[in-house]
Amino acid sequence: MFEPFSAVADRYRVIFFDAYGVLKNSKGVLPGAPAVLAGLRDQGKQLFVLTNDASRPPAQMARGYSDEVHGQLIEVEQVISSGLLATEFLRDKVRHGLAAYLGQPGSTHFIEAAGLTPIAIRDCRDAEPPLSAIVLLDDEGFDWFEDINLTVNIARRQNVPIVVANSDLAYPVGGHEVAVAVGSLANMMEGILRKTFIHCGKPDAMMFNYAYLQAQSLDPTVTKQDILMVGDTLASDILGANKFGIDTALVLSGTTQASRAAALIEASGIIPTFLCESIFT
Amino acid sequence: MFEPFSAVADRYRVIFFDAYGVLKNSKGVLPGAPAVLAGLRDQGKQLFVLTNDASRPPAQMARGYSDEVHGQLIEVEQVISSGLLATEFLRDKVRHGLAAYLGQPGSTHFIEAAGLTPIAIRDCRDAEPPLSAIVLLDDEGFDWFEDINLTVNIARRQNVPIVVANSDLAYPVGGHEVAVAVGSLANMMEGILRKTFIHCGKPDAMMFNYAYLQAQSLDPTVTKQDILMVGDTLASDILGANKFGIDTALVLSGTTQASRAAALIEASGIIPTFLCESIFT
Amino acid sequence: MFEPFSAVADRYRVIFFDAYGVLKNSKGVLPGAPAVLAGLRDQGKQLFVLTNDASRPPAQMARGYSDEVHGQLIEVEQVISSGLLATEFLRDKVRHGLAAYLGQPGSTHFIEAAGLTPIAIRDCRDAEPPLSAIVLLDDEGFDWFEDINLTVNIARRQNVPIVVANSDLAYPVGGHEVAVAVGSLANMMEGILRKTFIHCGKPDAMMFNYAYLQAQSLDPTVTKQDILMVGDTLASDILGANKFGIDTALVLSGTTQASRAAALIEASGIIPTFLCESIFT
Amino acid sequence: MFEPFSAVADRYRVIFFDAYGVLKNSKGVLPGAPAVLAGLRDQGKQLFVLTNDASRPPAQMARGYSDEVHGQLIEVEQVISSGLLATEFLRDKVRHGLAAYLGQPGSTHFIEAAGLTPIAIRDCRDAEPPLSAIVLLDDEGFDWFEDINLTVNIARRQNVPIVVANSDLAYPVGGHEVAVAVGSLANMMEGILRKTFIHCGKPDAMMFNYAYLQAQSLDPTVTKQDILMVGDTLASDILGANKFGIDTALVLSGTTQASRAAALIEASGIIPTFLCESIFT
Repeated sequence: MFEPFSAVADRYRVIFFDAYGVLKNSKGVLPGAPAVLAGLRDQGKQLFVLTNDASRPPAQMARGYSDEVHGQLIEVEQVISSGLLATEFLRDKVRHGLAAYLGQPGSTHFIEAAGLTPIAIRDCRDAEPPLSAIVLLDDEGFDWFEDINLTVNIARRQNVPIVVANSDLAYPVGGHEVAVAVGSLANMMEGILRKTFIHCGKPDAMMFNYAYLQAQSLDPTVTKQDILMVGDTLASDILGANKFGIDTALVLSGTTQASRAAALIEASGIIPTFLCESIFT
Repeated sequence: MFEPFSAVADRYRVIFFDAYGVLKNSKGVLPGAPAVLAGLRDQGKQLFVLTNDASRPPAQMARGYSDEVHGQLIEVEQVISSGLLATEFLRDKVRHGLAAYLGQPGSTHFIEAAGLTPIAIRDCRDAEPPLSAIVLLDDEGFDWFEDINLTVNIARRQNVPIVVANSDLAYPVGGHEVAVAVGSLANMMEGILRKTFIHCGKPDAMMFNYAYLQAQSLDPTVTKQDILMVGDTLASDILGANKFGIDTALVLSGTTQASRAAALIEASGIIPTFLCESIFT
Repeated sequence: MFEPFSAVADRYRVIFFDAYGVLKNSKGVLPGAPAVLAGLRDQGKQLFVLTNDASRPPAQMARGYSDEVHGQLIEVEQVISSGLLATEFLRDKVRHGLAAYLGQPGSTHFIEAAGLTPIAIRDCRDAEPPLSAIVLLDDEGFDWFEDINLTVNIARRQNVPIVVANSDLAYPVGGHEVAVAVGSLANMMEGILRKTFIHCGKPDAMMFNYAYLQAQSLDPTVTKQDILMVGDTLASDILGANKFGIDTALVLSGTTQASRAAALIEASGIIPTFLCESIFT
Repeated sequence: MFEPFSAVADRYRVIFFDAYGVLKNSKGVLPGAPAVLAGLRDQGKQLFVLTNDASRPPAQMARGYSDEVHGQLIEVEQVISSGLLATEFLRDKVRHGLAAYLGQPGSTHFIEAAGLTPIAIRDCRDAEPPLSAIVLLDDEGFDWFEDINLTVNIARRQNVPIVVANSDLAYPVGGHEVAVAVGSLANMMEGILRKTFIHCGKPDAMMFNYAYLQAQSLDPTVTKQDILMVGDTLASDILGANKFGIDTALVLSGTTQASRAAALIEASGIIPTFLCESIFT
């Protein structure tokens, strides 16, 4: 039932990797991952990381994929994060003005990179300026209790785009524990406001398309049939890549338990092209 | 288009009132409400308050409906709150054991009244006992930020009923501001856990049925056609009462703006029997 | 893990049975069912059938629960069908006028029993009269292709209650085949119209309450703790009875496969009080 | 509040048009549309039609945008239909084998264009072959009553991708009447099967991206800021284009009534860049 990952990867020229559950876990990049990436790079394959993570800028993420033997294996242009997609949206559609954000002041690079001026939601409490957008950042551990009510009320008064920097519902925090992620907060607020937010990240096609265009700019002969998406989650990695029209490998090193994989595929109708135990097998 | 409330009320022997937006607002019971209630009582009508509010016990709620002239107008047996429904569920289905709660220690009367032992979620952090139920209380202003992740993780480990003491998504906090209510938190957690919680309160039929049985115990000749539900919200008061099979009056003194009432009725297909400006007209 | 049904039933004074998957299958009432029902009756237990089935009147359904040895085991008053609930709603809320129906002319007894005048949707095509309600009947095999567009368009023009006589999404048709049921058509129409219909049947509390009141009228000492619901489907039988506050036994003789029961209970958070292989064990 | 369409269009180099409600109605292409298109073409703008319509091949659609004075104004490469997207998906992901279709034998060009062999669902009744995909075509007026149950049962047995050639819920049929569209049937089947289908068409980003790549292949200097999407529907045209990151003009010549436009924008949070009465003003 399982195929060796190396044999699967052999058939493709471009490989998209999910980060968490594939290349890393809650303790960081998996020890053997740089060697696997180096092997693929040495075969001339293009490698990309597609991650629903907006907690750090792509440059910082890229630096994590390195070791002393192989050097840096993923360049900043090869990291496509949901935060980068949020920046794209703000740059293309919103363009200028104030963007009120829910999150930590240290995470506003996604807003500034789009040419907008960030203002913390809590700084809108007493003097609420006219806004161009509201952005829900993706800060692990940020205490949004007080600010979320303020965000809801500002969104009731000002009809501006609301951008969610990560559409995931929860994130793993070690052991088998999870924490509520900003995608869940966004869904909750959409329920109260009955408005449609802009959710960045897999399974939406935008992230796959961004990576595809990057791959084509490096090698114009690349087609969709040359690309493999490797992920651990049916509902984001595999569904999104399937819809985008590229082949998919589900690895069982993350959220999908090996014992339940077949039942989940059957129940959901989300069908990966390949099943692999991990990228190391 | 609007009918006088007094003329509408004349046709019924039993009147169910929503509290917030009908009899009270964020400052408390409306000044003229006791006189209206007294007038109806003097005509021999049975009066009940059906409220999605579990922040205080029914006895305390009942005391609010009084003034110096008319005395107490609503007895404790006439207040049917979502908290009371939560107690009923815990008593009928769960019966004994520990109920871990998200909320303030002062609000656990709903759990104790059912014969269960409350334990705060945060007291389960270091030593997690076997639970019989998890209860999401309805505390205005409770800071659930830390406890919500703990609640999610306990619910992933222990498959026990999860009871939501109030199914409302938001509650008004004065001016035109709202705050996130426990019903929204419950929906968010259901999305993460993919489990079905027990939501207490309108529009579910249980609250209407409880009030109906109370009315019949006082007067066995009462039928559904003798009852009017008066509320300010289509999606809870009017939808629930319509489904339960009783007549309904939508008042425009609360969440439904007069200028948008007709459009909202048309768009939702939730049709009140009567439209009244308020209970004072 | 499984408990013998007879030992479970011993603890209760009133037993609610789902029909399909418990007492009958696509070929009719199971051969051994009358003997089981007779045994329970002889022990003095009250028996009810609660069924999401509006294709025939309760009297006709009741006659099916009989054999030569034991006679008729279920009386018409003991059959609570979703069709009966539809009649109750039409009688209590709609009361008079024309009810346009989607379905077969022979199935309109639910409308007539409520004192309304049925008119086929297709007879509204050329001369559309003012309606009091629209009713989606529960006819197996009715070809709704032509009439469904007409129903949608009438519902866009006339804002009247729309009653769904059975909330099930599909029904079994023998072998392992299913057919689209009227509950699915209703959901589809709600998506197009963005209106809220009145769905009759489990898991809604109304059906359980109706049966509960019948049980109490026969024996006023009955409480919820005296009642057991026996069903084969977590999302309707067990969820609805749990919410209503009565004990539940999931039997594995119908839609829930024995091999998957534990996983489904864990995944859904819908927890039956007891697990039994069937009513015969 | 309204801006003249010609002044809005002046600011862009590429214009994406929705077809129905913008360029055509139930009687065909609007009489003045070819002149408007010709004027834009003569200003050197690239023009595309993005349509949730898979009932005819793009070549046939393109021929409709012509008149005696101006000749053919839209070439086949400029028509991006949901059917074309379905073909792309089948070609990229499914590639070969049998595709069972729900629809008319004359509409299978989308399947054949992808290199697959179409087989009617009803021809799978007696001898069900192994399938590579199931395709729900977009045939106006096709009687799917009998075939839909067969499709559901095949999809329960064979876990293959299910492609929906048009994600719209309903389509207009003249006057103010609508008819159930294949997107509604797909949602209904997903509810019964609890599987995720591949829905082709707006608001999904894939259609916008396809058109964008076409525009760039003709003129590599085109960026997203050069493109305007013109549509009559907030939830498909405007939402999808907003998410894709291009400017939008809502025209009030189709499904969105002028009197309700402001309220719908406020209620949905889907905000067009411009509001125009029609493309003729």
